[in-house]
Amino acid sequence: MKLYDYFRSSAAYRVRIALNLKGLVPERAFVHLARGQQRAGDYLSVNPQGLVPALVTDDGHVLSQSLAIVDWLDETHPSPPLLPADPIGRARVRSIALAIACDIHPLNNLRVLNYLSNTFGVTADQRNGWYKYWIDVGFEALETRLAGEPQTGTYCHGAAPTLADVCLVPQVANARRFHVDLSPYPTIVRIDAACVALPAFADAAPAKQPDAE
Amino acid sequence: MKLYDYFRSSAAYRVRIALNLKGLVPERAFVHLARGQQRAGDYLSVNPQGLVPALVTDDGHVLSQSLAIVDWLDETHPSPPLLPADPIGRARVRSIALAIACDIHPLNNLRVLNYLSNTFGVTADQRNGWYKYWIDVGFEALETRLAGEPQTGTYCHGAAPTLADVCLVPQVANARRFHVDLSPYPTIVRIDAACVALPAFADAAPAKQPDAE
Repeated sequence: MKLYDYFRSSAAYRVRIALNLKGLVPERAFVHLARGQQRAGDYLSVNPQGLVPALVTDDGHVLSQSLAIVDWLDETHPSPPLLPADPIGRARVRSIALAIACDIHPLNNLRVLNYLSNTFGVTADQRNGWYKYWIDVGFEALETRLAGEPQTGTYCHGAAPTLADVCLVPQVANARRFHVDLSPYPTIVRIDAACVALPAFADAAPAKQPDAE
Repeated sequence: MKLYDYFRSSAAYRVRIALNLKGLVPERAFVHLARGQQRAGDYLSVNPQGLVPALVTDDGHVLSQSLAIVDWLDETHPSPPLLPADPIGRARVRSIALAIACDIHPLNNLRVLNYLSNTFGVTADQRNGWYKYWIDVGFEALETRLAGEPQTGTYCHGAAPTLADVCLVPQVANARRFHVDLSPYPTIVRIDAACVALPAFADAAPAKQPDAE
């Protein structure tokens, strides 16, 4: 299989973690988002949405959207599982993952930040304020859940990493890169630390990728 | 089961469609987003994220995030299925659903539009431009996929509605409400028409809900 990747893409980072957890080593191709390579014709012919990541399966199917890719990996390579076995547990893990993947991350995507600067003419300070605001709104709710729900364990859900952690760690990395104060979120910080102590998470970090700058 | 709902919430609209497709009739409670009821303590004690929808199961579990709820419904009430049986088909359907649920809808949420107006002071015209821009970016890519991929049928994936259609129809309704020109997206318009011809979709429309204004 072949992963279209970009070191700084949080969505690609999720897929890298999931691949590492599954012990899978894909071929890699790098699409430089900050240079606009995702809008070039040769990449659009792979993924018309022009977003990274995309995963090409061994039989040539092109999969897009990080959460769909992780679900496919989990269905086709079930060990270790990235979702609990029980439907309520699965719903909880999916809900945490989606609270990050739908309600925080898309608002802070590069294309969105560019729109704010280029079309609305917001200042760098305003842009950073926006970035931090959506992380804080999302993390406040997530901290409440993770700190209060008995299913939380060493990781977001119990004693093994799941799809929820696969989404959490790249989002925490973004928060740190933008100097968000994480002290109000001790449970998130604790779970992130447990995750990044695992090579599957550590090796997926942006700074460790061949295309890192 | 009990659905916390708001007629105009696209995420709640998805869950209403899925419940109708499954033939399930939940108890309903209405949370008025435009009046800020989702930030009130009694709703936050149900869903700390302060977002609609939430679904309370018969044994008292609170599920949040529309796509996690639909997945839970599909796992616990498998007929009719909302995902294909094959992993590649499931990945395609999830990818279409997520391209809407992650990459279009969150950018046009009420709380985001309020931030643009209240914090950045953008004009109503600029706000509408933002709204339409993200729909156009998302629909252009989606139209390319749906028009070009052989798995597209009467619906987004084959001859029966799936999670992809559950996400598509509320997004098309939003596009119409904001007067987005849909003529560049004939496949999307065709699939939307096939869906809304079904009572499960038609009965879930915002205007048909008891709390509609």
